[in-house]
Amino acid sequence: MSGDVQNFDMPTLGTPATRAHQQFRFVAEMDTLKSVVRHSQLIDGSRRENSAEHSWHVALMAIVLAEYADEPIDIGRVLRMLLIHDVVEIDAGDAYLYDVTISPAEIQRREENAADRLFGLLPVEQAEEFRSLWTEFESRSTADARFARAIDRLHPLLLNYIGGGVTWRRNRITSTQVMDGQAPLKDASQRLWSFAASFIKDAVARNILEQ
Amino acid sequence: MSGDVQNFDMPTLGTPATRAHQQFRFVAEMDTLKSVVRHSQLIDGSRRENSAEHSWHVALMAIVLAEYADEPIDIGRVLRMLLIHDVVEIDAGDAYLYDVTISPAEIQRREENAADRLFGLLPVEQAEEFRSLWTEFESRSTADARFARAIDRLHPLLLNYIGGGVTWRRNRITSTQVMDGQAPLKDASQRLWSFAASFIKDAVARNILEQ
Repeated sequence: MSGDVQNFDMPTLGTPATRAHQQFRFVAEMDTLKSVVRHSQLIDGSRRENSAEHSWHVALMAIVLAEYADEPIDIGRVLRMLLIHDVVEIDAGDAYLYDVTISPAEIQRREENAADRLFGLLPVEQAEEFRSLWTEFESRSTADARFARAIDRLHPLLLNYIGGGVTWRRNRITSTQVMDGQAPLKDASQRLWSFAASFIKDAVARNILEQ
Repeated sequence: MSGDVQNFDMPTLGTPATRAHQQFRFVAEMDTLKSVVRHSQLIDGSRRENSAEHSWHVALMAIVLAEYADEPIDIGRVLRMLLIHDVVEIDAGDAYLYDVTISPAEIQRREENAADRLFGLLPVEQAEEFRSLWTEFESRSTADARFARAIDRLHPLLLNYIGGGVTWRRNRITSTQVMDGQAPLKDASQRLWSFAASFIKDAVARNILEQ
């Protein structure tokens, strides 16, 4: 009796081509992002984080840290971007920042296909709006996107730093790699970039991250 | 080596009373909402949902369904409310809608204490802003809060409906109880209220919800 989202019909909303039907179908499909597991662990080390709860955490983090953006940002747009930024992982999976076995071009191809299918579940103008926000986030073409991306990068660093560097040690990551991964912060917030650098420095001092 | 959020010090940010220190400490504490388990199951029935991924899902749902609000709403405020609405559960736990063993007054007392402690981790003016948004959500005193609350109620109904009514059957919930639980929708959106009623009617027809 458990749900088959792909084929679930909601007859009282009309045919599957009905606007509300498409919208509820999309919302239901989004449920599967809760089963996409990331490399980051929860701070308490109990399990890995999934992409849905990560998306909530970065959105909340953006609200708290908005004041550090170097350029004026529209926090409502930043939130919408962060809430949808990982949706493509439902089809494409979570690409690990330091994974060298998949080329950036291949990741991009998979994610573009995922965006086509997933946002395509929505009514046309909403599909275009979501797709456009996602493309903006990916290309970091605006201040909103640069800030959203910076928060998305800073988040796993914070979890790893406070959580004792489990993911770094498991994958033998060095401080240079982590610094390189934080580079997008430089284009969004000098303050957040300096905080990130200070976390990395302290993580090395605590012996939870290799020099 | 795994993280003790309560006592974790970030020396390079200055003393624990420093603004950035308080903000990162709050963000880290929020990580524990991922371990608060709700009564709702994921649609695929694999496990129960946690409050962090629920918060992401309702925020996304609010964006998709914003057009159905009966009154003008500020979606940015709705999102901020939904992103923080369950934070108090870190201390107070998730109160089940149909639980009769805890009085509403007792739930409120626990949640107020939780709000004091958790939002109190933030710098004063941010603590007041978050606390005020949470109070607005709880009291449904504005169109934004009424819409946010409606989405928060509709969400578990949708999951249960598409997921085969597992939570309803486990707790022997009837369609009358579910209809009563959806009452807040009437003050926010006639359309969403009619969608909810149609889901309940169809759930009874499918024998996944008792009459």
